[in-house]
Amino acid sequence: MIVPVIMCGGAGTRLWPASRSDSPKPFLPLVDGESTFALTLARIADPSLYAPPVVIAGADHAHLVAAALVAAGARATVLLEPEGRDTAAAIAAAAAFVAEREPGAIILVLAADHVIRDHAGFAETVTTALPAAEAGHIVVFGIPPAWPATGYGYIHPGMPLAIAGARGVVEFVEKPDAARARRFLADGFLWNSGIFLLSASVALAELGAFAPQITAAASAAVAAGASGEGGVVRLDRQAFAAAPKTSFDRAVMEKTRNAAVADARFDWSDLGTWAAVWEAASRDAAGNVVIGDAVLVDAAGSYVSTARPRVGVIGVSDIVVVASDDAVLVAPRAAADRVKELAAAVDAMPAAGSDFVRHDRPWGHEQTLDLGTRHQVRRIVVNPGCRLSPQAPARRAEQWTVVDGVAEVTLAVEGETPAVTPVGEGGSIRLPAGAVYRLANPGTMPVTVVAVAVGDGRDEDDAAPGR
Amino acid sequence: MIVPVIMCGGAGTRLWPASRSDSPKPFLPLVDGESTFALTLARIADPSLYAPPVVIAGADHAHLVAAALVAAGARATVLLEPEGRDTAAAIAAAAAFVAEREPGAIILVLAADHVIRDHAGFAETVTTALPAAEAGHIVVFGIPPAWPATGYGYIHPGMPLAIAGARGVVEFVEKPDAARARRFLADGFLWNSGIFLLSASVALAELGAFAPQITAAASAAVAAGASGEGGVVRLDRQAFAAAPKTSFDRAVMEKTRNAAVADARFDWSDLGTWAAVWEAASRDAAGNVVIGDAVLVDAAGSYVSTARPRVGVIGVSDIVVVASDDAVLVAPRAAADRVKELAAAVDAMPAAGSDFVRHDRPWGHEQTLDLGTRHQVRRIVVNPGCRLSPQAPARRAEQWTVVDGVAEVTLAVEGETPAVTPVGEGGSIRLPAGAVYRLANPGTMPVTVVAVAVGDGRDEDDAAPGR
Repeated sequence: MIVPVIMCGGAGTRLWPASRSDSPKPFLPLVDGESTFALTLARIADPSLYAPPVVIAGADHAHLVAAALVAAGARATVLLEPEGRDTAAAIAAAAAFVAEREPGAIILVLAADHVIRDHAGFAETVTTALPAAEAGHIVVFGIPPAWPATGYGYIHPGMPLAIAGARGVVEFVEKPDAARARRFLADGFLWNSGIFLLSASVALAELGAFAPQITAAASAAVAAGASGEGGVVRLDRQAFAAAPKTSFDRAVMEKTRNAAVADARFDWSDLGTWAAVWEAASRDAAGNVVIGDAVLVDAAGSYVSTARPRVGVIGVSDIVVVASDDAVLVAPRAAADRVKELAAAVDAMPAAGSDFVRHDRPWGHEQTLDLGTRHQVRRIVVNPGCRLSPQAPARRAEQWTVVDGVAEVTLAVEGETPAVTPVGEGGSIRLPAGAVYRLANPGTMPVTVVAVAVGDGRDEDDAAPGR
Repeated sequence: MIVPVIMCGGAGTRLWPASRSDSPKPFLPLVDGESTFALTLARIADPSLYAPPVVIAGADHAHLVAAALVAAGARATVLLEPEGRDTAAAIAAAAAFVAEREPGAIILVLAADHVIRDHAGFAETVTTALPAAEAGHIVVFGIPPAWPATGYGYIHPGMPLAIAGARGVVEFVEKPDAARARRFLADGFLWNSGIFLLSASVALAELGAFAPQITAAASAAVAAGASGEGGVVRLDRQAFAAAPKTSFDRAVMEKTRNAAVADARFDWSDLGTWAAVWEAASRDAAGNVVIGDAVLVDAAGSYVSTARPRVGVIGVSDIVVVASDDAVLVAPRAAADRVKELAAAVDAMPAAGSDFVRHDRPWGHEQTLDLGTRHQVRRIVVNPGCRLSPQAPARRAEQWTVVDGVAEVTLAVEGETPAVTPVGEGGSIRLPAGAVYRLANPGTMPVTVVAVAVGDGRDEDDAAPGR
């Protein structure tokens, strides 16, 4: 049996503004309304070949994983990382978890943000590579390059192994410049897909040899992890934090003598840019992909997606327009690989008028929904176990309505004893001007409050740690 | 003395999505942060040449006019139209108002949405044309065409009048096709600016001759109008409604024997398209105009304006991007003249996911600010004297907080006597599930309510007439 290990880490800004820390790329409905996480589950759904998968994801995304598993009707073990420690630590944790339960297991390490349409070709590649993995090789899937990409790592394949189905690896090469990339294509190099087939015990042994700190930290985090309902294991925070952050490629693949490469017999995209998302999606007769409320007039070859505002595009082709409730991207498809650069520039923009941008806070996040001369409406989400700093606006009253979860509001009006009031879903509490009050979430699920402030003065940023 | 008449009618969709029924073009900060209404006031501010102006605007925009007059420190009479009846009726009303107070007055009819930077050239054109107007001519300002525009009406000038400063008019020509427009340029035709200089009594006499119904209706609406504070006159609704809707060009200019044309000695733009707005604004070294929170990387010759979301543009030039809180426009500058067509297509789009679009209602307007699986936040604006239909959601409680004005809430809980409660700014009222309630605004200023609904089922559209 092969145990798939699905790695959900990494939100990235290359798909800005859709990909955010709380709506990361694997869970966005990027491919004809499906998420790549759902597509990944479907890819390894064959019970004659695969055991139920191990999903490794950030603890912040536990609810996204759970919802996607339910939607797919899939069973899985979910390892939750208290914080991201890159792929070496993630694979070490998954391998430790699997090896403890089934020492001889072969694991198939998959990224949750790839698109592969040819399930049969994928299964064929896996079964072809299996003997090499069983013989102790770390088999990486190499993708025959479709163009001289400068955004991928390359693999220089060596001689065929004694065992059929894979070749040796001469060298792993980091992202090349355009000239080297063209040479790599001529020399038969392959793209490094980041998909690995190997035995769990080999993974642990090689990680133990080349990155003993990571392996010790990840194993301890699994051993001290807390098992919850529905196959969820929370890795121990303190133990896992000791793992140095590095990639599996760098920690192991560039050093091991057991590396092997199998030629991928399937299509592949990592949806690295909006152009790749456009490429992977079904397009209409004009070559357009339109998601959400958008109208295209005299436009072709374009990707237009909106999560909120209505979008109208006229007389321009091969363009990418992505709109969310607080940001809009406009770029030609040909410039889609520069979106990361643009996102950084937008983030660096002085916040003068950015009243409606969502702000991540140590205790959760908040966003202004409406702003008038004398009022402000905010949505405040407080993570479990967190609380905001006390607030004491002198000339502004607030009305807080809880729309999700149970909030705890501490209210101190001058001359009275401070009162702690639990406010449940649908409940509302008035906070008069001049009072001191504090919002907390003592529960285990996020709390969402809609706060309507009326009077002079806006809420200041509350970026103080809330735990 | 010349009495300027500033016509504020017409929002138009050529500047979609910025221009809306409640934020019409003359009041948008389109030219380096200034509105064209403010620029128009500045143009006729010279007290040695002009009397305080008469502004004619829709009653819905009274607050916009008032605020702009205060900001400019300008004194004016404001005639409020209960509904728009096109330019013939508007000019008739203004002429009747002026003629009654000063029978010999000359009026200068101006649109509030033009840009003219050369104040001296404008004043010179006015003073040059004045003798012709005083002699009974209806002088229209003709603009020497800068290109063979197909979007303007043309004037075929005739022989010079006996009185210096103007020529006769052979013909007014509607918007031509491209070939005719080129011929017009070769033949010395002029653009019809829609700016007129004429005596108030001549205006009334000519309108009376060619459009007696309009003249009677407008005069009666002025006579029966209600004078309010600060020089505001509300035209009588019933009387004004009897005026047929037509333009002054069609009603009078194409028929009168007294038409004359004065050559404009000033620059002119009617900001008819976003390309014209770009042209009229100050541009940076790359030829970009950037308004609001936007970042342009490797972009030139572009107009990017946002009222809310942050906008990032990379690697595309000569493009127009305009973002509001519920709509985004993307078009090359060269296609800016097709925005009206695009706006119509967007409006015709099925409203499937358009949850956040602002909806105009007979009683005001409403917009969803936030939407979750179990909650909805709306901003509801109720016009003076209006009320919504009664609502009776079975499984949803609401918390209404008044953020502007004084609302009247009628609440009927089963088994109790219905209660009518006035709720003032900052006040909040809970509407339990299963109750019947109704929101009204008995006052004279708009009321704004933020409604937070929690539970099952969303508010249905309340598009019932509310008066």
